[in-house]
Amino acid sequence: MLDAALADGTAERRCTFEVFARSLPHGRRYGVVAGIARLLDALPRFTFDDAEIAVLQSAGAATDRTADYLSGHRFHGDVVGYPEGELYFPGSPVLSVTGTFAECVLLETLVLSVLNHDCAVASAAARMTTAANSRPLIEMGSRRTHEEAAVASARAAYLAGFAATSNLEAHRRWGVPTTGTSAHAFTLLHDSEADAFRAQVDALGVGTTLLVDTYDITEGIATAVEVAGTGLGAVRIDSGDLGVLAQRARAQLDDLGATRTRVVISGDLDEHSIAALRAEPVDAYGVGTSVVTGSGAPTAGMVYKLVEVEGRPVAKRSSSKESRGGAKSALRRHKPTGTAVEEVVHRLDADVERGEHDRVVPVPLLVKGEPTGDQPTLEESRERLRRGLVAVPWEGLKLSRGEPAIPTTFLP
Amino acid sequence: MLDAALADGTAERRCTFEVFARSLPHGRRYGVVAGIARLLDALPRFTFDDAEIAVLQSAGAATDRTADYLSGHRFHGDVVGYPEGELYFPGSPVLSVTGTFAECVLLETLVLSVLNHDCAVASAAARMTTAANSRPLIEMGSRRTHEEAAVASARAAYLAGFAATSNLEAHRRWGVPTTGTSAHAFTLLHDSEADAFRAQVDALGVGTTLLVDTYDITEGIATAVEVAGTGLGAVRIDSGDLGVLAQRARAQLDDLGATRTRVVISGDLDEHSIAALRAEPVDAYGVGTSVVTGSGAPTAGMVYKLVEVEGRPVAKRSSSKESRGGAKSALRRHKPTGTAVEEVVHRLDADVERGEHDRVVPVPLLVKGEPTGDQPTLEESRERLRRGLVAVPWEGLKLSRGEPAIPTTFLP
Repeated sequence: MLDAALADGTAERRCTFEVFARSLPHGRRYGVVAGIARLLDALPRFTFDDAEIAVLQSAGAATDRTADYLSGHRFHGDVVGYPEGELYFPGSPVLSVTGTFAECVLLETLVLSVLNHDCAVASAAARMTTAANSRPLIEMGSRRTHEEAAVASARAAYLAGFAATSNLEAHRRWGVPTTGTSAHAFTLLHDSEADAFRAQVDALGVGTTLLVDTYDITEGIATAVEVAGTGLGAVRIDSGDLGVLAQRARAQLDDLGATRTRVVISGDLDEHSIAALRAEPVDAYGVGTSVVTGSGAPTAGMVYKLVEVEGRPVAKRSSSKESRGGAKSALRRHKPTGTAVEEVVHRLDADVERGEHDRVVPVPLLVKGEPTGDQPTLEESRERLRRGLVAVPWEGLKLSRGEPAIPTTFLP
Repeated sequence: MLDAALADGTAERRCTFEVFARSLPHGRRYGVVAGIARLLDALPRFTFDDAEIAVLQSAGAATDRTADYLSGHRFHGDVVGYPEGELYFPGSPVLSVTGTFAECVLLETLVLSVLNHDCAVASAAARMTTAANSRPLIEMGSRRTHEEAAVASARAAYLAGFAATSNLEAHRRWGVPTTGTSAHAFTLLHDSEADAFRAQVDALGVGTTLLVDTYDITEGIATAVEVAGTGLGAVRIDSGDLGVLAQRARAQLDDLGATRTRVVISGDLDEHSIAALRAEPVDAYGVGTSVVTGSGAPTAGMVYKLVEVEGRPVAKRSSSKESRGGAKSALRRHKPTGTAVEEVVHRLDADVERGEHDRVVPVPLLVKGEPTGDQPTLEESRERLRRGLVAVPWEGLKLSRGEPAIPTTFLP
């Protein structure tokens, strides 16, 4: 595409590409924007060195013309988009990329890879956060996804309200709080469960979390309190009928006088099983597979569509997968109480009435290839999502399948 | 875990960890091993530099003792495992890692991340290859998954029989054949569909694939042949009722005299829709989302379990998620015709009768941290899978849910 467009001169046409999701997966009520900071971080590094260009040429994937273009290529366009932690709905213009066709088309895969992955994880994680109802969630799914996706997943889960991750690299790169626990292997390594617990308490103090389900859970809890005393931080149960086991563990800990020892539950949890444990005496959840794989929706289904060429709206027309042409913005309308009621998507040049409780959702991210001022911190994005979820109508927080929390209206 | 084990001396105990899947997802009949080469490639780089260790220390995740250990750490153990392209079944000992507890436990996340991801993609891709029944498949899902997972996915799909990928980085790193096509954006960029087709044919020759469904498919095909002539390589249709559209496209191309122009179909295909198109005149399939997300099973569900400590078998005992202790190997039994009949998993030291058609599945991969001789090329692994699938009983190639293609027998 690039080569042919360079040859006939269309590569220089000024274009706007729009990122949006046609729908939300599995009848979910909202999506969560994540990955913007990763994208802004990756863009300056999205260049092609001589060795890479040589490979493209020898593979027949780049002519001399294309090689010339790629050499020294850097994105100099404008990007406007939803900030991280913002909610999105079907058709929300999550990102608008404007520049020459050449520079914009090159970004498609990078932009969509980052957003499709991170939004999928954050959207699932936010539902788990809601289901956990203020009990802390620990992301521990690194082993269940690609090694680099694991780092991004830990970040997206934290953005969506998780308390911490077991992924240390996510702490190093993005400052995500980390926590750890021990595995069954640590207990099995030792000559007895008591030896294992003693070693862990010696190293980490009595505030640690002991994994009590390697052999017999009742004996495990008794041993844990015997070794650590009633000041033990927490016990973790990773298998079995978790609701029943949490109740028994709580009762046993209370009987032993360890009334402040917390009960941490893990083992194939998702938003539904977390919700089902609401009435049980659980103090924290460890979540793995389901959060890093988007709980059944491992990709957010976002697309990157050319919507405008030299100021002229363009759109595919052949099928039900139609797109709406023209560069767009969006206004979120709210009641005076602060509850969101509508996502209004409109052409950039449209004259849209804006009430005092409405707000423009997209913000400038890059101008002529340069970041615009200060980007929000991960903590600020986390707070943005928290506030965004408060503004969602209560039906919009339901886990069941249904319509989006608010309707999207497309102005003509 | 590492710190506590270093403190009490158990870190030096000789351990074997085993990687296996308890079951196959969604009633699939077999799994495909992939990621071994990526893992062997990553292991020598799995070290900790001073800056990284400092971060761990400041995060409270490493004591001075652990920092000392990590500094200059390198894996010196032994790894035995199923080669890439090998089939696996529930309980197959896909990888056995032997060394000190410290060096083995550190590898858990890396090993599982690579194998859970790559095996998930390859296992889904192999089913698509079977469904396509020798018609070529093109992997084009990079945009639907994390940017690094995309590269690994392209490799895993090729290993599992796909013909090519659109991911150029997978070509650069792993030599995967690449191919490209144009997007709707390329057509929309131009003043007319004919202009777009002409630009593409000028740049890439008449052997190229023209995307004909941006506006009206019938007109698109007519324009494509008008511009490129009857020697046009292929037309691609990306949306709509693909079976019907393929028939119509074929008939129209034949009427126009473009009898050798191929019909390429894409658009949310998975193994089931590929199978459903078997009777239609389709020459190649482009597959995106479903292959890179494991077609509903984005993680292979492999676990990394401690099975032996200082020669003593160990296993978790508290629940249904039991493991079998002891370092193991596996023998695949075959009929004289070459059809596989049974996966026999046995303790390493067991005396197992081996028939003339049986073969030991695991091979040495690392000895004292060093790779053992030549590793198979990607082409050889691809051929291994091809042969492995020929040996599967015919019921084992069904796409429907059911039992594994061959039973796993665990010798006591």
